[in-house]
Amino acid sequence: MRTLVALADQTAVTLDQTRLPFDRVDLVLRHCADCAQAIASMQVRGAPLIGAVAAFGLAFAMREAPDDAALDAAHARLLATRPTAVNLRWALDRVRARVAVVSPAQRWAIAWREACDIADEDVAINRAIGEHGAMHLRRLMAQRETAGRPLDARTPLQLLTHCNAGRLAAVAHGTALAPIYALHRAGVPLHVWVDETRPRNQGASLTMWELADAGVPCTVVADNAGGLLMRQGRVDGVIVGCDRVARNGDVANKVGTLLKALAARDAGVPFWVACPSPTIDPACPDGEAVEIETRSARELTHITGRAADGRLCEVQLVPDGVAGFNPAFDITPARLVDGLLTEHGLVAASEAGIAAVLTASAASATSRTSP
Amino acid sequence: MRTLVALADQTAVTLDQTRLPFDRVDLVLRHCADCAQAIASMQVRGAPLIGAVAAFGLAFAMREAPDDAALDAAHARLLATRPTAVNLRWALDRVRARVAVVSPAQRWAIAWREACDIADEDVAINRAIGEHGAMHLRRLMAQRETAGRPLDARTPLQLLTHCNAGRLAAVAHGTALAPIYALHRAGVPLHVWVDETRPRNQGASLTMWELADAGVPCTVVADNAGGLLMRQGRVDGVIVGCDRVARNGDVANKVGTLLKALAARDAGVPFWVACPSPTIDPACPDGEAVEIETRSARELTHITGRAADGRLCEVQLVPDGVAGFNPAFDITPARLVDGLLTEHGLVAASEAGIAAVLTASAASATSRTSP
Repeated sequence: MRTLVALADQTAVTLDQTRLPFDRVDLVLRHCADCAQAIASMQVRGAPLIGAVAAFGLAFAMREAPDDAALDAAHARLLATRPTAVNLRWALDRVRARVAVVSPAQRWAIAWREACDIADEDVAINRAIGEHGAMHLRRLMAQRETAGRPLDARTPLQLLTHCNAGRLAAVAHGTALAPIYALHRAGVPLHVWVDETRPRNQGASLTMWELADAGVPCTVVADNAGGLLMRQGRVDGVIVGCDRVARNGDVANKVGTLLKALAARDAGVPFWVACPSPTIDPACPDGEAVEIETRSARELTHITGRAADGRLCEVQLVPDGVAGFNPAFDITPARLVDGLLTEHGLVAASEAGIAAVLTASAASATSRTSP
Repeated sequence: MRTLVALADQTAVTLDQTRLPFDRVDLVLRHCADCAQAIASMQVRGAPLIGAVAAFGLAFAMREAPDDAALDAAHARLLATRPTAVNLRWALDRVRARVAVVSPAQRWAIAWREACDIADEDVAINRAIGEHGAMHLRRLMAQRETAGRPLDARTPLQLLTHCNAGRLAAVAHGTALAPIYALHRAGVPLHVWVDETRPRNQGASLTMWELADAGVPCTVVADNAGGLLMRQGRVDGVIVGCDRVARNGDVANKVGTLLKALAARDAGVPFWVACPSPTIDPACPDGEAVEIETRSARELTHITGRAADGRLCEVQLVPDGVAGFNPAFDITPARLVDGLLTEHGLVAASEAGIAAVLTASAASATSRTSP
């Protein structure tokens, strides 16, 4: 089941995620402006999905006006929509590199093809992350067997995740949730603790929605609860996604990820980051260099939910005139990450691990583009 | 300004905290049942305030029926309202010990007097915590001066707190906020980062309300944000309250406290727990022995706020049928606590530190009760 589908009529269709979990509303993308708006307003979010939608946006721009100035303007416009997820720049640069070297008349067709390829590759990348991740989760299961705590329906494998790095964050499968879906399909008894993920509640509204939709047992908890759960031995492993990984293995991800990484390390729980190679930023030396997006305090002071009469209703949560500060991401230092789950396998969150992934990705890109 | 006032007509008046921050509604306590209901429904909350309200509840019970059976029944009823804060048992045991040894005819007067004393002592304890805490915060200020980062209005002393351990959590002054109020009154430029404190939002709705009411600069942040703020050097110190401190210094406090303690240790930020001696449980060997209250998942899945038309409105935040798990407290191991701020001064969170506090408290109790 794809979150983003390229249709034969050369539009792209996705879900409006600001309407979830209460309404399932399709969002049809036809123009560069649609894509820019969808990313900026978080109708689409999640690093891999942002990248793919931006690619379609740049393609649509080439249908609208294929000259160099339009190419640069659309690239700049789309790049400015969100600052932290590096997949955005990666996808835009990739499409631009393809079309910049051909004549304007060819640009739309080539850009559309490239955007479709980026989307298809995201599916393949996430499928591979799912397979590698499932293999490593099976090791956790074996450890539990050895420790005399075998799995069954009443004592399932217990995983914790933060934010939404599921299929809604990607073209399909998801990143952090891909291994979970793979194990669930294989009949492994598992249960996912889902961090609410304030202030936008992507865990409570998106991850809970898609896990329940897939029949995966899951329970929402306050972001505050994960430390206790880990100390109580109720978490076998933590898997999260990421928005940008620096060359040294530092991870930018949804704010609050750092707190879970600290708790996992303190409690001896493995902490893995699902990291498709396009989320690695080779130009970024370390976490300090990542721009952390600050979003409106209104995301913190107000919230929209469904009232008793079924209508959506926005309510204010704080006294009038209150100041709020709303950074959207934080940095988890590489030393707290037990491994990066990439499409090329589990690697260390380190300069060497990152270099190995980049080399493997370059090799697959070469084999993909060579005749 | 007292949160709980004993009136000459032998009622006690407090604020209904479930109505804050939007409505300021007095709650008059006249009967044991009023007090039990107020604690159970969280119209009053915060370990010191729970203790004082329970003491009045047991006193009212003695007005209603002063026999031994009624005494035991009221003690049991009030004790069952909340499981984690030990001040509840401490206050109930103290009132019962006073009245059990006198004739039923004398019990109401003695119990009322004892409840008033417990409330007055809470004020004195918290004033002392404020003074000791302010002194230690001044050391932080001196360290900043030495480090070439002196305080001024644009670069104030930056503190972070979790939940509400302010005057609303106590009879007056608060515990964690007492030092902050003391410094603010002294004209020290400071700013408080206030954790929202999901799921009941005591930080966003109560701490923000009372700090703003007192003119203390403050900003609400998602519970997820504290780790980032500490890593960015934007927090000089963390002060929280507690609901029960074990004999070894382990701290039970609002869920999420552990995550902030881990982040503080990792970032080299001091982490202090404001701990009135009645919150120490000498019968509790360590944090593992503390019962953690599990509250309704509805606190997580629904929230009440003020709609655009000014009415309070409860909205659902998650898809239908979602499971939630809602532990209300967690345990911060003593090793992560840089000190317990008690009415007798700052002590180590350790067996020795706790013993010193208990000895000092026993000495003041003796001097208080001796003729």
